Amino acid sequence: MSTTTQDRILAQLQKAGGRFLSGEEMAARLGISRNAVWKAITALRERGYTIEAVPRRGYRLAAAPDRPFAAEVLRDLPGPRAWQVEYMATVASTNDEARRRAQEGAPEGLVVVAEEQTGGRGRRGRSWLSPPGLGIWCSLVLRPPLAPREVLPLGLLTAAAARAALAAETGLPAAIKWPNDLVLPDGLKLGGILIEMGAEAERVHYVIAGIGINVNQQAEDFPGPLAATATSLRLALGRPVPRVPLLRCLLVELARRYQAALAQGFGPVLDEVRNHCITLGQWVRVESDGRPWHGRALDLTVDGALLVLPEKAAEPVTLYAGDVSIRPAPGGGR
Amino acid sequence: MSTTTQDRILAQLQKAGGRFLSGEEMAARLGISRNAVWKAITALRERGYTIEAVPRRGYRLAAAPDRPFAAEVLRDLPGPRAWQVEYMATVASTNDEARRRAQEGAPEGLVVVAEEQTGGRGRRGRSWLSPPGLGIWCSLVLRPPLAPREVLPLGLLTAAAARAALAAETGLPAAIKWPNDLVLPDGLKLGGILIEMGAEAERVHYVIAGIGINVNQQAEDFPGPLAATATSLRLALGRPVPRVPLLRCLLVELARRYQAALAQGFGPVLDEVRNHCITLGQWVRVESDGRPWHGRALDLTVDGALLVLPEKAAEPVTLYAGDVSIRPAPGGGR
Repeated sequence: MSTTTQDRILAQLQKAGGRFLSGEEMAARLGISRNAVWKAITALRERGYTIEAVPRRGYRLAAAPDRPFAAEVLRDLPGPRAWQVEYMATVASTNDEARRRAQEGAPEGLVVVAEEQTGGRGRRGRSWLSPPGLGIWCSLVLRPPLAPREVLPLGLLTAAAARAALAAETGLPAAIKWPNDLVLPDGLKLGGILIEMGAEAERVHYVIAGIGINVNQQAEDFPGPLAATATSLRLALGRPVPRVPLLRCLLVELARRYQAALAQGFGPVLDEVRNHCITLGQWVRVESDGRPWHGRALDLTVDGALLVLPEKAAEPVTLYAGDVSIRPAPGGGR
Repeated sequence: MSTTTQDRILAQLQKAGGRFLSGEEMAARLGISRNAVWKAITALRERGYTIEAVPRRGYRLAAAPDRPFAAEVLRDLPGPRAWQVEYMATVASTNDEARRRAQEGAPEGLVVVAEEQTGGRGRRGRSWLSPPGLGIWCSLVLRPPLAPREVLPLGLLTAAAARAALAAETGLPAAIKWPNDLVLPDGLKLGGILIEMGAEAERVHYVIAGIGINVNQQAEDFPGPLAATATSLRLALGRPVPRVPLLRCLLVELARRYQAALAQGFGPVLDEVRNHCITLGQWVRVESDGRPWHGRALDLTVDGALLVLPEKAAEPVTLYAGDVSIRPAPGGGR
């Protein structure tokens, strides 16, 4: 990303930490005119920054907007990854955009984040409602040295990082529904993960980790059938939730787990998923290529697959794909 | 593919099987002018078709060029697949072109075939020399209902089909070097397979099966270091080999195995690969993420991975990726 005058002025104000900076001083530091400083301040205000101006004292950053601009998301972000944030007001699908960038050679760590997706997607080509300003709609470009078979655990890792960020930032008992949903304990959906890849048979070229989190929707923002299955952090907490700290937390949690998995394998993060997975131990309805069937979800395999013991069967089935919904135990018992 | 007047005239001539057809008759059948027939005949001659013209008898197809035009490749092609052939004189990479088509929604069965690739690729981004007219450079779009982990055996299936076609059309004892090379028993490379995919974590969107076969190169067509490792069918047989029958045979062999694998799994085709794999039973040098090591290649797993027993180790290693080269046994033993 090019550092524009606007970004540089913003960085100065952020660094001043709420103290006043004179326009003259900023102009001198950046080697630009005072008029250019004033223009940048105006543009920043238009983007939602609250900047006080007091004669003879200068400018002061009073408040930043809760919008996932690169400057906000990346500010002092810890962690080993070289994140880049590409902020877009509106996009058809952040996954498609990130994939396009990846195919053009974008490096690992690019985050495409949009206020709105007009054609947001979930698994299996389902649509994902992504209204402007109300959620985190973003996609990360990763380039892990993995085989395609290892991308399923990477998806679970992404879900684990998002779940941890949700829990840390809101205190909600967020959980994972295998393989890719972020839910409340009652199963209402807070968000989801969509992992896509470009790969050779034995080696991944890139992975796109798409993350959608319902943050500030109100009840009326979930039309029709969604109202029965989806919720938002705001609805669960009864107050609006700032998006930028949540996204920052998510990137930090993700980077930590990603580095650990590449160094030591997916064992620890799969244990974390086991501890927070509402699917395990439950009766489930499975739909994969055709006829649905019922069984009990026993465990995750080392590959991230779901081990399900079908009703009236002696041997469990290893499930790599498919729709799994949680059902009451048959006959009320186990 | 749109059926042009040229294609329709060609189809008439092909159907006549070497008999004469009058221009008047063809014009009437197709509802076009005699002048349009003459123009199409001229264009077909320019594409390499030998078409005799005798006054009062008409036109006769005496010979077709050995070029992988759709009309040649697809003529009376048996097999259950709805193949489509997209012929290109030159392209950077048939895999890239096929991927672009797949992302735009191209159906399963599209074959992108080029006379020449200017940026042909092998595994791991290596270049693949694809001089004009001398080989089969093609990429197939497949849309199998598989998980990404099942694409490795699909690559072996493609190699098995190509190997069978080479053996059937030339009588050469073609073999497979795990995972994707087509070789002679001495290890000289006749061709290779490059499998790429677009996928979700648990489901394939499309697979691109790229196939490159060195057909009619002469010694001087393999520059520098390639001369020591590569060969062509022509060099192995001492005569030029027509490309169109080979490509047709390959598509038929591939369709048969693909249908069988989707219906019954990869077991039988993995057995076929075992029977024709020069890697198995050999001492190999393995290079995967860093330090090379040596061992003995024991078998293929049900996933298509290579089971290698490292020198001085008790437990075999399952290899999903990496470069495996065949070496003489250490100390001249075994």
